[in-house]
Amino acid sequence: MLRDPSVKYRPFTPIALPDRQWPGRTITRAPRWLSTDLRDGNQALIDPMDAEKKRRFFDLLVRVGLKEIEVGFPSAGATEFDFIAGLIRGGHVPDDVTIQVLTQSRRDLIETSFASLDGARAAIVHVYNAVSPAWRRIVFGMTRPEIKAIAVEGAKILRDEAARRPDTDWTFQYSPETFSTAEVDFSVEVCAAVMDVLRPTPEHPIILNLPATVECATPNVYADQVELFCRMLPDRDAAVISIHTHNDRGTGVAAAELGLMAGADRVEGCLLGNGERTGNCDLVTVALNLYTQGVDPDLDLADIDEVVNTVQYCTNIPVHPRTPYAGDLVFTAFSGSHQDAIKKGFAARQAQNDEMWEVPYLPIDPADLGRSYEAVIRVNSQSGKGGVAWVIEQDRGLKLPKRLQADFSAHVQALADETSRELGAADIWGRFEATYLPSPDDRFVLRDYEETGTIGDRLFVGRVAVDGEERSIAGRGNGLISGVIAALGETGSALDVIDYNEHAIGHGADAQAAAYVECRTADGRTVFGVGLDTDVATASVRAVLSAANRA
Amino acid sequence: MLRDPSVKYRPFTPIALPDRQWPGRTITRAPRWLSTDLRDGNQALIDPMDAEKKRRFFDLLVRVGLKEIEVGFPSAGATEFDFIAGLIRGGHVPDDVTIQVLTQSRRDLIETSFASLDGARAAIVHVYNAVSPAWRRIVFGMTRPEIKAIAVEGAKILRDEAARRPDTDWTFQYSPETFSTAEVDFSVEVCAAVMDVLRPTPEHPIILNLPATVECATPNVYADQVELFCRMLPDRDAAVISIHTHNDRGTGVAAAELGLMAGADRVEGCLLGNGERTGNCDLVTVALNLYTQGVDPDLDLADIDEVVNTVQYCTNIPVHPRTPYAGDLVFTAFSGSHQDAIKKGFAARQAQNDEMWEVPYLPIDPADLGRSYEAVIRVNSQSGKGGVAWVIEQDRGLKLPKRLQADFSAHVQALADETSRELGAADIWGRFEATYLPSPDDRFVLRDYEETGTIGDRLFVGRVAVDGEERSIAGRGNGLISGVIAALGETGSALDVIDYNEHAIGHGADAQAAAYVECRTADGRTVFGVGLDTDVATASVRAVLSAANRA
Repeated sequence: MLRDPSVKYRPFTPIALPDRQWPGRTITRAPRWLSTDLRDGNQALIDPMDAEKKRRFFDLLVRVGLKEIEVGFPSAGATEFDFIAGLIRGGHVPDDVTIQVLTQSRRDLIETSFASLDGARAAIVHVYNAVSPAWRRIVFGMTRPEIKAIAVEGAKILRDEAARRPDTDWTFQYSPETFSTAEVDFSVEVCAAVMDVLRPTPEHPIILNLPATVECATPNVYADQVELFCRMLPDRDAAVISIHTHNDRGTGVAAAELGLMAGADRVEGCLLGNGERTGNCDLVTVALNLYTQGVDPDLDLADIDEVVNTVQYCTNIPVHPRTPYAGDLVFTAFSGSHQDAIKKGFAARQAQNDEMWEVPYLPIDPADLGRSYEAVIRVNSQSGKGGVAWVIEQDRGLKLPKRLQADFSAHVQALADETSRELGAADIWGRFEATYLPSPDDRFVLRDYEETGTIGDRLFVGRVAVDGEERSIAGRGNGLISGVIAALGETGSALDVIDYNEHAIGHGADAQAAAYVECRTADGRTVFGVGLDTDVATASVRAVLSAANRA
Repeated sequence: MLRDPSVKYRPFTPIALPDRQWPGRTITRAPRWLSTDLRDGNQALIDPMDAEKKRRFFDLLVRVGLKEIEVGFPSAGATEFDFIAGLIRGGHVPDDVTIQVLTQSRRDLIETSFASLDGARAAIVHVYNAVSPAWRRIVFGMTRPEIKAIAVEGAKILRDEAARRPDTDWTFQYSPETFSTAEVDFSVEVCAAVMDVLRPTPEHPIILNLPATVECATPNVYADQVELFCRMLPDRDAAVISIHTHNDRGTGVAAAELGLMAGADRVEGCLLGNGERTGNCDLVTVALNLYTQGVDPDLDLADIDEVVNTVQYCTNIPVHPRTPYAGDLVFTAFSGSHQDAIKKGFAARQAQNDEMWEVPYLPIDPADLGRSYEAVIRVNSQSGKGGVAWVIEQDRGLKLPKRLQADFSAHVQALADETSRELGAADIWGRFEATYLPSPDDRFVLRDYEETGTIGDRLFVGRVAVDGEERSIAGRGNGLISGVIAALGETGSALDVIDYNEHAIGHGADAQAAAYVECRTADGRTVFGVGLDTDVATASVRAVLSAANRA
């Protein structure tokens, strides 16, 4: 049994901010993005990336359009240092991309970090130390002034190391680690002290990054903290406010979005939510959330499968099939009513005058991400006639009339109930063929036919195997179908045609015709027939024989 | 390239609710929970569950403590109907559990749904129809009054069918499907009309479920909608307000939490976020989010691995390693600074007077979920000395002195850099043995020793193989260690002992002793030695020889 949690867990105490403004805002432009895939993401892997994988991931980030990329923690070891130095020496950093490195606020580590960046055109050096009460007490055994002194000392080393290397365009970043569990006024105090040393300006601002190192409360609380921080910070316009959320409570994306509404300018995270423990904020989701609101995310995710494949290869962690926008199942509808609504949405789209996307159950056009529609509608025992008809149409080009859809879906439903698994297009087509299309075992098998007579008075003469015995049957009517019906009458088969449809499949020489008839038998039952042929007339004849075979 | 989205996607227009109250609230008690794993979850699976899997999942839900369980969509087909009827006939529904079935608002489907529940002690019949403008226009081609009439007609059928079956304790549930993209006033109007038919009371309330059928905006917008709905609804106290979120924007859990703060009483969702497309709200995450705030979730998740295993088996979809609380990697720290902080957190906990959980980077005690600490700290190239020392202590009981930790971690770091993979406890121990423990190839191999003399004046006589040649060495000192040092002097080995530690490993007859020495060589280098033996004295001798071997 789970124990009573009240003796072991303390509720997080939110700050009071009754005049908060963020809940009334929306996000109307893309933030600056920082990928920490090669740092926070990499340090959380069972098998950290080797140089080849890091390089591959870096190149993906560049292709996706990330302009700020945290490439590692150079003082952590030779693997990290060499990769970063190699990126620069090898000329692999495009001119419009700035790399970032992380270091604790200690002289030797900061110096090593600068050394790794030797020769860089531009770089962000990111220093952090934890500021929250729990960390102060448990991890460091330090007072507030001692913690602040660590940050200030780090800032001085930053300033001096940068001054010694004037050929690189330096940006400074400071994170009050564990911001989300710290007192906002103390975070402001430390950040302001760091700014006093580094003297940022609106033209050359500092980046202040506010980590939800561990997610500790509902995401609105983080937004309140960010809004209050932005209000209290002196020289707000000399700072880029950056947010860095984790997902311990499953709300890392929400916290980032509400944090942007609360005034942040920049988001740190990883593609598809890799990162420590439950992952960092998923940049793909935040970016595509903007996209579906008509806001250009300034990231290119038009080939989402390439992103998924590269991330999976480099991290050796699978992307879950339900990951927003990127998972294998997120554009898939199995339920009949969903399938029906999606079909109607696509149909309405063809009729509308603008490009606006409004398809039920699909918040984004899969084609925008390089995904096909094939997987949108899939059929299992939860599906209805809409889905089945869609698959037949997508796969074979047959546009089944509505009542034929209902007739056929009962066959598919039975198959789904029997097999208890998803039915592929091949399963569905197999059942369609077996149900409606000619087989040598049919009662009536068409060998050949001729049609003669004058318009309005036609004679149909068919060579047909009836119960395995080949014979000639003939019938008169005002057209082909009535002629066939009359000819079938010779064999004792009595059918009335209630409805008839025919359409072409494809164009030109390869075009086929599909004919559908709905007939009533002498005893009042409804039977459907389907005929496929390169010739429209022959398709009709086949359709009537198909119905007769099912009567 | 992603295209300019502004021509294709319209931003969602939030409602204006400047006096919203929810951002100032926290969640202080558990909501009512409804599992829709067997309905919304099941309909989203590539291979829907067969009867055996459904039964297994149902039993898991009962064990976890779900009191309201949506068991299917009985009018969808024989598989669904038979499972539900079988649950009831087989007596598998505990007395304190109420099953729920979903149906569209159509007479034949509602009647089938009631038929499936024949013999139930109690049941919730859940009727829905979509109310949003897009669905009205695209899917139904209906006006507002026509949509409302469908709901009212469904309510009348509900009322009448229930009246015909007085032996079951019926609860009615109505969902204005697509609530989150509908006009709140229209949702209220439809729900109020349904209530007019069903006449709920505070003692026998209706459940009104507000689906974010497709997530369409940041989660605060949904909370505003829920708060406004609760304010506008007539007879609010005769309704249980239920929320049903999806995760299309990755914020389904956040929307549920903010929705609860906005006044909802009940949450529908699935274990571990299965469900249509990107999944339903993850009930495990919402429940454990409450738990870590000291709020009893009224669900028993003390064996999280059983939940994970059963859900994976039944859905045939893996649980992602970064899923909050349940994933394989969420309690794991690879980074050295994280490992160090976690170690300090565990140490502080032993010293504190209460049970309060406050361990850096771990928002919950893994033991509360039936997880061990073994996986908490894992070592790869991103790890520092803290993690290595933790693994050695957890695995072998050795409490390495701080400077020895640093000495050894350099060896482990080199191994990690060479191998580019996670190092298991066996890798680390192997490197420890090779570095510090005796080997036949060592310069000094202890065969035996005697110690004689009086207290304060000891004579050590050892039989030692030196460079492969067995000899007797002797030394005098004020104790054992100084005697060994003196004896080693005979061979030309000159060491000063700087620090010495020893501790027992285990208790009783099986106890071992571990001795650690830190020495300085004649040329000023520091070397460490480790000795393990069942005898505390022999362990010390071995430790000094270990240091001499490394000098």
